[in-house]
Amino acid sequence: MTESFPLKPGATIGILGGGQLGRMLSLAASRLGMRTHIFCPDAASPAFDVTPWKTVADYGDVAALRAFAGAVDVVTYEFENVPLATARVIAEHVTLYPGPRALEVSQDRLAEKGFLSHAGVAIAPYHPVRAADDLPAAVDAIGLPAVLKTTRLGYDGKGQRILRSPGDAEAAVAEIGGVDLVLEGFVPFEKEISVIVARGRDGAAVTYDPAENVHANHILKTSTLPAAISPAAAAMARDIATRIAQALDYVGTMGVEFFLVADGEAPELLVNEIAPRVHNSGHWTEAVCVTDQFENHIRAICGWPLGQTTRLADVVMENLIGNEIADIAGLAAAPGVRPHVYGKAEARAGRKMGHVNRVVLPEATK
Amino acid sequence: MTESFPLKPGATIGILGGGQLGRMLSLAASRLGMRTHIFCPDAASPAFDVTPWKTVADYGDVAALRAFAGAVDVVTYEFENVPLATARVIAEHVTLYPGPRALEVSQDRLAEKGFLSHAGVAIAPYHPVRAADDLPAAVDAIGLPAVLKTTRLGYDGKGQRILRSPGDAEAAVAEIGGVDLVLEGFVPFEKEISVIVARGRDGAAVTYDPAENVHANHILKTSTLPAAISPAAAAMARDIATRIAQALDYVGTMGVEFFLVADGEAPELLVNEIAPRVHNSGHWTEAVCVTDQFENHIRAICGWPLGQTTRLADVVMENLIGNEIADIAGLAAAPGVRPHVYGKAEARAGRKMGHVNRVVLPEATK
Repeated sequence: MTESFPLKPGATIGILGGGQLGRMLSLAASRLGMRTHIFCPDAASPAFDVTPWKTVADYGDVAALRAFAGAVDVVTYEFENVPLATARVIAEHVTLYPGPRALEVSQDRLAEKGFLSHAGVAIAPYHPVRAADDLPAAVDAIGLPAVLKTTRLGYDGKGQRILRSPGDAEAAVAEIGGVDLVLEGFVPFEKEISVIVARGRDGAAVTYDPAENVHANHILKTSTLPAAISPAAAAMARDIATRIAQALDYVGTMGVEFFLVADGEAPELLVNEIAPRVHNSGHWTEAVCVTDQFENHIRAICGWPLGQTTRLADVVMENLIGNEIADIAGLAAAPGVRPHVYGKAEARAGRKMGHVNRVVLPEATK
Repeated sequence: MTESFPLKPGATIGILGGGQLGRMLSLAASRLGMRTHIFCPDAASPAFDVTPWKTVADYGDVAALRAFAGAVDVVTYEFENVPLATARVIAEHVTLYPGPRALEVSQDRLAEKGFLSHAGVAIAPYHPVRAADDLPAAVDAIGLPAVLKTTRLGYDGKGQRILRSPGDAEAAVAEIGGVDLVLEGFVPFEKEISVIVARGRDGAAVTYDPAENVHANHILKTSTLPAAISPAAAAMARDIATRIAQALDYVGTMGVEFFLVADGEAPELLVNEIAPRVHNSGHWTEAVCVTDQFENHIRAICGWPLGQTTRLADVVMENLIGNEIADIAGLAAAPGVRPHVYGKAEARAGRKMGHVNRVVLPEATK
């Protein structure tokens, strides 16, 4: 199919990836009258439960990719590790948003750091480690403590080791080496915050209020709104997120994670990571925003104008990991709780099963 | 399938009816991790686009109904004209919420008026018209002007005629007669308002703020929150809606429409109609409530605790009828607009194609 932008209701959005983010994108698309077609290799993908259109195939299956691309009006993705070859096959046939450039940059920590530095965005000091032999020079350059990370495919703390003394280096390389690595300076941050930014085909960008994030075992535990940060830091974070989206000529919703190193009138903010997709730390937006991060992603990739990011109440988003989902009906009884359950069959340890948004109710209604 | 309440995520909710209300119920169920199976005779039903599970069959197809009932954990419906025989077949196999009593009462205006009167709820004066010969006595009893209505299957003004003089009677009977009719006193109301009430399996009930409704050509045009009515009228409307839900031993979300005849410290409110389902005049709840009418329906029929009905902002819901949907992307550009498009293929005149919620943004963010 080919249709011109803005896409009209009844158009079909192809989504690469069938996890909870693909599922939530599909639900948002349905609210705008769009159909969705999910492409995912895993036959038990939760996103398959919310649309009749699916393709179960490997991301390297070119025939399946072509058929998928031919059946939809635009393609997007729920994860940044879509193979570039996959993205290129899709992009030959149909518009892919966000574009392949966002994937290239975000799939490789070195490419990302290079891009951010070039865009004038402050990040932690870093040094490439192409081989074990490079490590002493990297440690000399960055100092200790530092964090050794694989350049690719790391998430939720996987593929990372903290080096506290020179003696840690050898073991760390043994554990996660054999692939390209990067040594990052350890940042003694005050807080972790993130900003969700959405940018349309027309170049207009909107940002949401910064969230204050707490991680446990390297997995996001809570996002709290408002973040307890200065107005200057909030404005700076929103500005940086917007500049990154503009520099990438980005179309869609993106998450930008920051370390707030020092707050005050002249705050110091370092970008930790960017994610070219809807982001876990933006799940609060569905409970208290006029237009949530999912709808703004769909609006953007359909060529629609973006919606208001206005936040109507304070809120804490809490991820439900593994068995924390077990008593979801009980959790839903607490005042102001808006639950979201991802429909995954098995509550494995460390697996994101759902989240609850705890909306702070106005005084009069408590 | 049989499962005990509260239903756990992964359970399947059967929905009779595949229109926009069934579709929105399905989307809300998905947010709670439930699957949905839509039963509808129309193969082009919009709700079929948001779940892979469907049955296309007539409501009288007993074998199809049994197979459907056997494949789901609870059944609900999106419209009050589900044939009672259909409801009974379902209820033999699986729990049906709201129960058959709510259908019986709401399918027949005379049964509804009898129920409401018995429950001590004020309604407009009425008189049954079983045959044309009954009409003169009915007019004598009720006076003119009055409204002659079919007792069954009327909606959006269909099956209604206003009688202004005795001479109108014969033509009205000719147009809508041949079935049971009822003559209702014409109520000179100040405003039309409605209250959405939800009641759980445990008997706990919650109500939403009353909406002020404006109709055009007998079809709901806008619902405005807050309604410009006295606190006494709002409290009375919420109380009446709760009493009706309790009297029906209702489980789920229900719409109650009122005529506000006189406002003030001792307001006069008449119940116009009840709808045993999510209701068009409650679509605003999805934009500005912690828990919207759809989620509370799903919570109720799954045996979950109900969620907060707290309203976080002022809002106007506007139905998009027929071609009003044509420039939906343009409409979505206005500040505070949250669109909902039903995914219907053809924008026929008088057809509800979608709605927009216009959220009144807090001053600081305009």
